Amino acid sequence: MRQESDFLGSKDLPDTAYWGVHAARAVENFPITGHSVAQMPHLIRAFAYVKKAAAAANLSLGTINAQQAQAIAQACDDVATGMLDAHFVVDVLQGGAGTSTNMNANEVIANRALEIIGQPKGAYDVIHPNDHVNASQSTNDTYPTAVKLATYFGIQDLLAALAALRGAFQVKAEEFKNILKIGRTQLQDAVPMTLGQEFTAFASMIAADEKRLRESASLLCEINMGGTAIGTGINAPVGYADVVTAKLAEFSGVPVVKAEDMIAATADTGVFADISGILKRIAVKLSKISNDLRLLSSGPQAGVGDIKLPARQAGSSIMPGKVNPVIPEVVSIACFEAIGNDAAITMAVEAGQLQLNAFEPLMAWALHKSLRHLAAACRTLQVHCVEGIEANTVLLDARINESVTLVTALNPLIGYEKAAKIAKAAIATGKPIAQVAEDLGIMSREKMQALLVVDTLTAPGALRAS
Amino acid sequence: MRQESDFLGSKDLPDTAYWGVHAARAVENFPITGHSVAQMPHLIRAFAYVKKAAAAANLSLGTINAQQAQAIAQACDDVATGMLDAHFVVDVLQGGAGTSTNMNANEVIANRALEIIGQPKGAYDVIHPNDHVNASQSTNDTYPTAVKLATYFGIQDLLAALAALRGAFQVKAEEFKNILKIGRTQLQDAVPMTLGQEFTAFASMIAADEKRLRESASLLCEINMGGTAIGTGINAPVGYADVVTAKLAEFSGVPVVKAEDMIAATADTGVFADISGILKRIAVKLSKISNDLRLLSSGPQAGVGDIKLPARQAGSSIMPGKVNPVIPEVVSIACFEAIGNDAAITMAVEAGQLQLNAFEPLMAWALHKSLRHLAAACRTLQVHCVEGIEANTVLLDARINESVTLVTALNPLIGYEKAAKIAKAAIATGKPIAQVAEDLGIMSREKMQALLVVDTLTAPGALRAS
Amino acid sequence: MRQESDFLGSKDLPDTAYWGVHAARAVENFPITGHSVAQMPHLIRAFAYVKKAAAAANLSLGTINAQQAQAIAQACDDVATGMLDAHFVVDVLQGGAGTSTNMNANEVIANRALEIIGQPKGAYDVIHPNDHVNASQSTNDTYPTAVKLATYFGIQDLLAALAALRGAFQVKAEEFKNILKIGRTQLQDAVPMTLGQEFTAFASMIAADEKRLRESASLLCEINMGGTAIGTGINAPVGYADVVTAKLAEFSGVPVVKAEDMIAATADTGVFADISGILKRIAVKLSKISNDLRLLSSGPQAGVGDIKLPARQAGSSIMPGKVNPVIPEVVSIACFEAIGNDAAITMAVEAGQLQLNAFEPLMAWALHKSLRHLAAACRTLQVHCVEGIEANTVLLDARINESVTLVTALNPLIGYEKAAKIAKAAIATGKPIAQVAEDLGIMSREKMQALLVVDTLTAPGALRAS
Amino acid sequence: MRQESDFLGSKDLPDTAYWGVHAARAVENFPITGHSVAQMPHLIRAFAYVKKAAAAANLSLGTINAQQAQAIAQACDDVATGMLDAHFVVDVLQGGAGTSTNMNANEVIANRALEIIGQPKGAYDVIHPNDHVNASQSTNDTYPTAVKLATYFGIQDLLAALAALRGAFQVKAEEFKNILKIGRTQLQDAVPMTLGQEFTAFASMIAADEKRLRESASLLCEINMGGTAIGTGINAPVGYADVVTAKLAEFSGVPVVKAEDMIAATADTGVFADISGILKRIAVKLSKISNDLRLLSSGPQAGVGDIKLPARQAGSSIMPGKVNPVIPEVVSIACFEAIGNDAAITMAVEAGQLQLNAFEPLMAWALHKSLRHLAAACRTLQVHCVEGIEANTVLLDARINESVTLVTALNPLIGYEKAAKIAKAAIATGKPIAQVAEDLGIMSREKMQALLVVDTLTAPGALRAS
Repeated sequence: MRQESDFLGSKDLPDTAYWGVHAARAVENFPITGHSVAQMPHLIRAFAYVKKAAAAANLSLGTINAQQAQAIAQACDDVATGMLDAHFVVDVLQGGAGTSTNMNANEVIANRALEIIGQPKGAYDVIHPNDHVNASQSTNDTYPTAVKLATYFGIQDLLAALAALRGAFQVKAEEFKNILKIGRTQLQDAVPMTLGQEFTAFASMIAADEKRLRESASLLCEINMGGTAIGTGINAPVGYADVVTAKLAEFSGVPVVKAEDMIAATADTGVFADISGILKRIAVKLSKISNDLRLLSSGPQAGVGDIKLPARQAGSSIMPGKVNPVIPEVVSIACFEAIGNDAAITMAVEAGQLQLNAFEPLMAWALHKSLRHLAAACRTLQVHCVEGIEANTVLLDARINESVTLVTALNPLIGYEKAAKIAKAAIATGKPIAQVAEDLGIMSREKMQALLVVDTLTAPGALRAS
Repeated sequence: MRQESDFLGSKDLPDTAYWGVHAARAVENFPITGHSVAQMPHLIRAFAYVKKAAAAANLSLGTINAQQAQAIAQACDDVATGMLDAHFVVDVLQGGAGTSTNMNANEVIANRALEIIGQPKGAYDVIHPNDHVNASQSTNDTYPTAVKLATYFGIQDLLAALAALRGAFQVKAEEFKNILKIGRTQLQDAVPMTLGQEFTAFASMIAADEKRLRESASLLCEINMGGTAIGTGINAPVGYADVVTAKLAEFSGVPVVKAEDMIAATADTGVFADISGILKRIAVKLSKISNDLRLLSSGPQAGVGDIKLPARQAGSSIMPGKVNPVIPEVVSIACFEAIGNDAAITMAVEAGQLQLNAFEPLMAWALHKSLRHLAAACRTLQVHCVEGIEANTVLLDARINESVTLVTALNPLIGYEKAAKIAKAAIATGKPIAQVAEDLGIMSREKMQALLVVDTLTAPGALRAS
Repeated sequence: MRQESDFLGSKDLPDTAYWGVHAARAVENFPITGHSVAQMPHLIRAFAYVKKAAAAANLSLGTINAQQAQAIAQACDDVATGMLDAHFVVDVLQGGAGTSTNMNANEVIANRALEIIGQPKGAYDVIHPNDHVNASQSTNDTYPTAVKLATYFGIQDLLAALAALRGAFQVKAEEFKNILKIGRTQLQDAVPMTLGQEFTAFASMIAADEKRLRESASLLCEINMGGTAIGTGINAPVGYADVVTAKLAEFSGVPVVKAEDMIAATADTGVFADISGILKRIAVKLSKISNDLRLLSSGPQAGVGDIKLPARQAGSSIMPGKVNPVIPEVVSIACFEAIGNDAAITMAVEAGQLQLNAFEPLMAWALHKSLRHLAAACRTLQVHCVEGIEANTVLLDARINESVTLVTALNPLIGYEKAAKIAKAAIATGKPIAQVAEDLGIMSREKMQALLVVDTLTAPGALRAS
Repeated sequence: MRQESDFLGSKDLPDTAYWGVHAARAVENFPITGHSVAQMPHLIRAFAYVKKAAAAANLSLGTINAQQAQAIAQACDDVATGMLDAHFVVDVLQGGAGTSTNMNANEVIANRALEIIGQPKGAYDVIHPNDHVNASQSTNDTYPTAVKLATYFGIQDLLAALAALRGAFQVKAEEFKNILKIGRTQLQDAVPMTLGQEFTAFASMIAADEKRLRESASLLCEINMGGTAIGTGINAPVGYADVVTAKLAEFSGVPVVKAEDMIAATADTGVFADISGILKRIAVKLSKISNDLRLLSSGPQAGVGDIKLPARQAGSSIMPGKVNPVIPEVVSIACFEAIGNDAAITMAVEAGQLQLNAFEPLMAWALHKSLRHLAAACRTLQVHCVEGIEANTVLLDARINESVTLVTALNPLIGYEKAAKIAKAAIATGKPIAQVAEDLGIMSREKMQALLVVDTLTAPGALRAS
C-alpha cells in the first residue's frame, strides 16, 4: 500500500494502482452503475491524445521540463494502447463535470510516467498529476475535448456499420430489381413497384443518414483547449491554445480547431444535443426500416408475406416451427434505447448553468451507448438478416395479377371518378378490373389488358406513352 | 376607456373590459401562442369555485364584509357559467407561475361584482381585485388548486369517452365471439383464438386504463389553499385553510382536502407529472390498439385483412377506391401529441426551484390539450370506426383450416420436438399438418383431425381433456 | 346550399363554401383540436405555390388546358394572399397523411378558379379538384412538399428573431465589457471574467444556433413532386417532375430540387426529425440562457444578484414590490413545449410504414408551433428583457475584491497545492488571500497584490507575463 | 465439448456450460451491449421462482413426474442463490420478446437438475428444457411474470433507499427547525420560513413518492401464468393457472394474482409504462431537490449560500480550494438517465403488436437500470451529502434582518398597494422598511417593529392575532 493525500486527508492505496487519491474519492462518491470508465475505450484513448498534446505544448512554452514532457508523452502512448484501461476506475456516471475522470487520467499518466523514468508511484514532486500532467489545463477544457474526440471515434464506427448495412440492401435491391409487387400506403394496397425499388429506398435512407452523420461529426472538431476553467485561459501561457490544438490534431488525426468564443465553448454543450439529435434521427429511421422488414415478412400464412427473413433461432419455447423476426426486433430495441438516451441528453444539456455544464459525464456515457449499440445493431441486421432475405415470388406474382389498385394507372385516360367506380365494383364483386371496366362500358377488356403491362407501371408517364 | 394603474404606471383600458391593468401587462409580455385562457373553460370554472370559496371563508373570518362577499360570490357564479370567458385574455403560455391568470380572474370577478352592486368598473376601493377578491390568497395556492380542479374535470370527460369506447369494443366482442382466427405474436402466425377474445382484450385494456385514471384523479384532491405565498400561510387568518377547503369541496363537488405539508404542496408539482404519466400510459395503449386495428384491416388484397373498418372518406387524391384507416391514424396522432406533452411536463416539473414552480402554466395547458384531444380521439374512434367494424369471415375461415400453427396444441401429447418436425415439413411441402403427421409416422390423419377441433383450442386443457 | 358527392354519397354544402365534400367529410372525422388549418398560413401559402407550379407543369405537358391552367394559377395567387384562409376548415390534427388538407386545397382552388372564369362553385366538369387541380399529383408528393416549404418559411421567421436577440446581447456585451465579476462553475465561485464576456457568450451561442438552423433549412429543399402516390411517378407525364420542381422554385423563391430517390423521399420523413432536433437544440440552449438570466438576477437581497432584469409586471398577487423574471420564464416554457413537440415528432417519424408515413400532419403542426412560439419567445426576451438589463456594479465590485478564487491565478507560480492551502485558510478565517499568503509564508502581501491586477486576469498568460 | 441441436442444426457447447443451444444462438444474434442477463440478479431469481412454481403445478396436475419436479425445484433453488448467474449469457438487449432469456433459464435449470440427479448435461430425454422445465408455459407468460417480479424486488430496494434519505432530511429538519430564512419563489426573495420547514418539505416530497411507488408495486402483482402463448392457455392443463399462481406467491413472497383477462394481460405491457412513469415522477422530484441543494449551497462568496454541503472531493483540477456539489450533481444525472429510460420504455410499450409485445427485454433492462441507479443515487445523497449539511446561520440571520419581503405580512393591515409602496421605496433607498413606512406616513417605526416579530411570521394569522 502507498499513501496519498488531498485536502480531505490521506488515504491508503494499493501499490499496484496507477490511479490516486482523487480517483479513490470518486469511487466512494459515485457508486451508481457499477460500470467504470474502463468500458469507454474511445474516451480513454481520447484522453491520452489530449494529455500528450498538452505536454507537448507545455514543453514548447516552458511550463514543464523535457524529462517530464517525454515521460508524460510515453505514458500517454501506453494509455492509448488500452493497456491501462483497468485503472480508469471511476463510475461512468459521476458528478463534477468530469473532474474525476480527468483526475483519474492525470493520476494514471503521472504514475505511469514516473514508472517509465524509474520513479516510484506517488513521487509527485517529480511528475505531479495536477501541476505537470494537467498543466495549463482544467477539467473544463480537457474533458469536453476528450468527449468530443471519443464521440468522433464512435461515429466512425457507426459510419462503417451503416455503410455495410447499406451495401447489403443494395445487393438485395439488385437481386430483386425485376420482382413486381403492390406498394402500400397507410397499410392499404396502393400502386405497383418493384421489390428492388423498395430495397433501394432502404439503402437511400441509410445513405442520407450517413451523409448527415458525417457532416455532423465536423461539429465535434471545435474545441476549447486552452480555455482552462471558464474559457478565459487563466493559468495557461500566451499562445498555448493554438499550440495544443495543433498538436492534438496531429496526434489524434482529428481535424480539431480552436473555438472562436472560448467562454461560450466551455459553457455550451449544444453540440452533444446536436449529435444526439442526429443519432435519434438515425434510430427512428432504422427502427422504421426494421418495422417494415417485420411487416413485409409477416405470416407465413396469415400475414403480408412479401419476403422471408432468414431463420436465426427457434422462435418460441412453445410453438413448434415458429420463426420470429428477432433481428429486426433487437434493432428496434437498440433504436428505442438511443431515443431514450437522447431524452436524457436533452435534460442534461438544458440543465447547464452559467460557465459550465456539470452533467457532461451523462452525455458522454449516453452517446457512447447509442453509438456502440446502434453500430452493433446495424451489423447484426446486415449479417444475420438482410443478407439472407428472400422474395416470396409466388405470392407476389399472384397478388399483382389480381390487384384492384392497377386502376390508378387509368386516371390520366378516364379520370379519377370512373376509375374509382371500377375499383369499387371490382372489390364488391371480386371480378378482375378489366372485366368490370367492360361491364361498366368504360373500356374493353382487351384494351385495358394491353394498357396494364405491369412492368411499365413503375415509372412516370408509362400509360400516357402507350 | 378607463384608466388603471400599477407600480409601472397607468394604462388605458376599454370600458367594456372586465380585465384590468395586470392582465393588460401580461398580454403585452406573453404574445406566445395566440391562444388565450378563454380556451380553457374548465380552468375558468375552477377559478370561479376557488374565488367563491375564498370569499365565503373570508366572510366567515371577517376578512371581507358581507356586501363584498355576496357580490364576489355572485360574480363567481357568473364566471362559472362561461359568460365571461372572453375576458380571460392572457396567453395560455405565460411566465410567472400563473400570476397573470390569477390576476386576470381577480380583475374579472372584481369588475363583475362591482357591476352587480351598481358600481362602475375600476371602483376598486369598494371591491379590490387583490385586497378583496384575492384576500387571504396568493397565486401560489389558488393557481395550482384551480389547475387541479380543471384537470379533475377534464379527467371526467376522458373517463366518459373511454367508457363509451370500451362499450363499443364489448359490443363487437360479443358479435365476434364465435369467429375463429389465428392469433399473432411478433407478427408471425401463432395459435388460434376467437376474434371476440381479441376485441374483449381491447375492452379490458381500456377498462384497466379507466381504473388507473379514476384512482389517479384522487391525487388531485390534495390542495394547498390557505398556504398563500410559500405554504406558511402568511396573510391568511387562523383557520382559513380549513374553511376554504370545505367550501371549495361544497361548491365544486370535488372532494378536496388540505395537504398535510403545505410547504411541500406549494413547491411540488409532482402530481401533474403523475397525471401526465397516466395519460401517457393511456396514449401508448390507445395507439397500440389503433395500430392493431390498422394491421388487422390491412389489405384489402395484399395485407392481413382479418377485419374491415368502415369507409369514412375517399382515401386518396389519386388512387381510386382506396379507403384508408384514417380514424385509427388520427387516434395515434392524438396519442403521440399526448406523449410529447408528457415530455414537456417532465421538463417543467423538474425545473421547479425552491418554494415554487414557475412553469405551472405549461403543465395546465399541456394537460388540458392531452385530456381534450384524447377524449375527442376516443369518441371519433368509437363512433366512426369501432362501431362499424366487420369481420372478414371468409378469409378467417380459410386461414384457420390451413394453419400450421395448430400443431402447438399437440405438444402435450407428442412433445415440442416432434411437433416442430411436423410444422417444418408442413411449411416446406405446403401439405396439411394432419397429412404430414401421418407421413412422418407420428399420428394418423384421422386421429389428429379428431383432436384438432378448433373450437376447443382457445382455452386451457382442451387437448388433454380429449 | 349546393350538393357534392363522393363514393359515400352526396352532401349539402353552404353556397359560400369554397371547400367541398372531401373537406366536409374530414371535418366530421377529425374533431380533435378545434384548430383548423386556417391557423397555419405558411402551409396554405405553400400549397398555393405547389398547386400553381403543378398547373404550370401540367399546361406545358398538355395535361390540362390553358383556361384551366390560367384560372388555377390565379386562384393560387389569391390563396397565397391569405384571403381564403378561412376556407381551410379541416382540423390541424387529421389522419390520412394529409389527404384531407390536400383535398381541401384542391377544392378551394377549383372553386375559386371556377369563380374567376364565371362558373358556379361545384362545376367540376370544367375545373375538377382531382382531375385538374390535383393533376399529375398525389397527396403523397404535394403534402410533404408543402409542409417542407411551410417549415422553410417558419425557419426564416425564427432566424430573424434569433438574429435580433443576438444583437441585443451583443449591445449589452459591449456595454458591460469592463465590468469584472466572478465566473461560476457548478454554481460555485470560480475565476474572474467580465460581464461583457458572459453576454458575448450568450450571443455566440445564439449565433451558432442560427448557423445550424440555416444549414438545416437546406435539407427541406429536397422534394418529391412528381413521385405521386409512392414515388414511382404513376399518373404523372414523363418530364413532369423536373418541370414542376423548377416552377416551384421560381414561384416560391425556395431553391427546391428533385430528390434522387423518389421512393425513399416519399416514405421517409427523417428530415422533419432533423429539423425538430435542431429546434430542440435551440430550445435547450435558449432555456439554459433564460435560466442563467434568472440565476444572475436572483435576489434582490438573498440571491446571486449580478444583474437586474427590467420590471415588466407586478410579480405577485400577495407580495408587494416583488418583481419576477417572468420573461425568461415564459421563454423556458416555450422551450419545454418545443422539446415536447420533438418527442411527438419522434414518435410520428418512427411510426411510418412501408411506402408512406400517415402521421405527417402531426409533424406539420408540431413544427409550426415550435417555430412560431420559439420566435415569439425570442422577440419578447429581446424587447422585454435583454434590452433593459442593468449590471449590479456595486455588488460585483465588492465581490471581486473579497474573492478567494483569485488564488487560481497563482497556480503557475506556486503550484496547485500551495494555492489550495491559501484558499482553504482564507475561507476558514475570512481573511483576504494576500494576508493569508503572507501568514503562511508563501508570498508577501505586497507581491500578491501587485500580481492580482484583476483586469489582467481574464485572458491567458496574464500572470506569467508579469 | 458436448453437442446440442435445434432446427437449425447442431452446435458444439463447452462441457461446463449449463446453458444450451438456444442460448448459444441468441449470443450470436444479439451482440449489442456486451452486458449479459447475469447483470440482472433480480430477474434471475424471479425466473427461479417462476420455474419452481411451474414444476410444482405440473407435478400436481400430472404433466411431469416426481423425479423431474423435485430435481427442477432443487435446481431452481440453486439458481435463486445466484450461484449460476454466470450462465445467463444472453445479452440484456435481445429480440424475441424474451424467448432467449426464457430458454437460457430452461436450459440452465434442466442441466443443473440433470446434474443433481446424476445425469450428464444435455440428457434432455430425462429432463428437457422445453418439455419439462417449460411444461405448460410459454415465454409469453413466464417472461413478463418474471420481469414483474424482478421489478417488484427492485422497487423494494428503492423504497428502502428513499426511506433512509427521507429520514436524513427529517433529522436535518429537526436540527434546523428554529433557523429563520427568506423563502424564495421564482428565485426572488419571498416571505420568511424556517430552514426546518424547507427540509421537512423535502422529506414530505419523498414520503409522497414512497407512497405512490408502494401503491404502484401492487400493479405488478397481476400476472398471466397459465395463459401460455397468447393468453388462451393452449398446452396448459385445466386448473394449471390457479395452481401455478398460488405456488408462485408462496415461493416468491410476492402476492401475485391471476389476471382477469389473460389475453389482454399477455399483449398489454401498460404496467411497465406505469411503473416507469412513477419512476420518472420520482426522478424529476429527486432532481429538483438536488437542484435546490445546489442552489442553496451556491457560493461560497457570490451565491445564495443558505447552507453548506459537506466537502467530498477536490472540486477542480485547477481552482484550489474549490468544492463542488458533486453528490447532488450525480443524483440529477441518475434522474436524467431514468427520464431517458422512460422515453425508451414509452416507445417500446407503444410498439407492441397484436397478441404480444416483442420489446419487453428493453423494458426489463431499462427498469432494472432506473431502479438500481436511483436507489444508489438516494444512498449516496443521504450518506455523502444530506447527513453532513450545515446551516449558514450568520448569513441567514443577517438577511432576515434586512429583508424587504417582510412587508407582505402587513397586507392584512394596510392593504397590498401601500405595502407595495413601502417595498419599492425600501429597495430604491436601501433603507429599512420600518423607516420607510414612517417616512411615508403609513405607520410608525415602533409599531412596525413590534408587529414584525419574525418568529411568528411562518404560520397563518400571526399578524392578525397581534
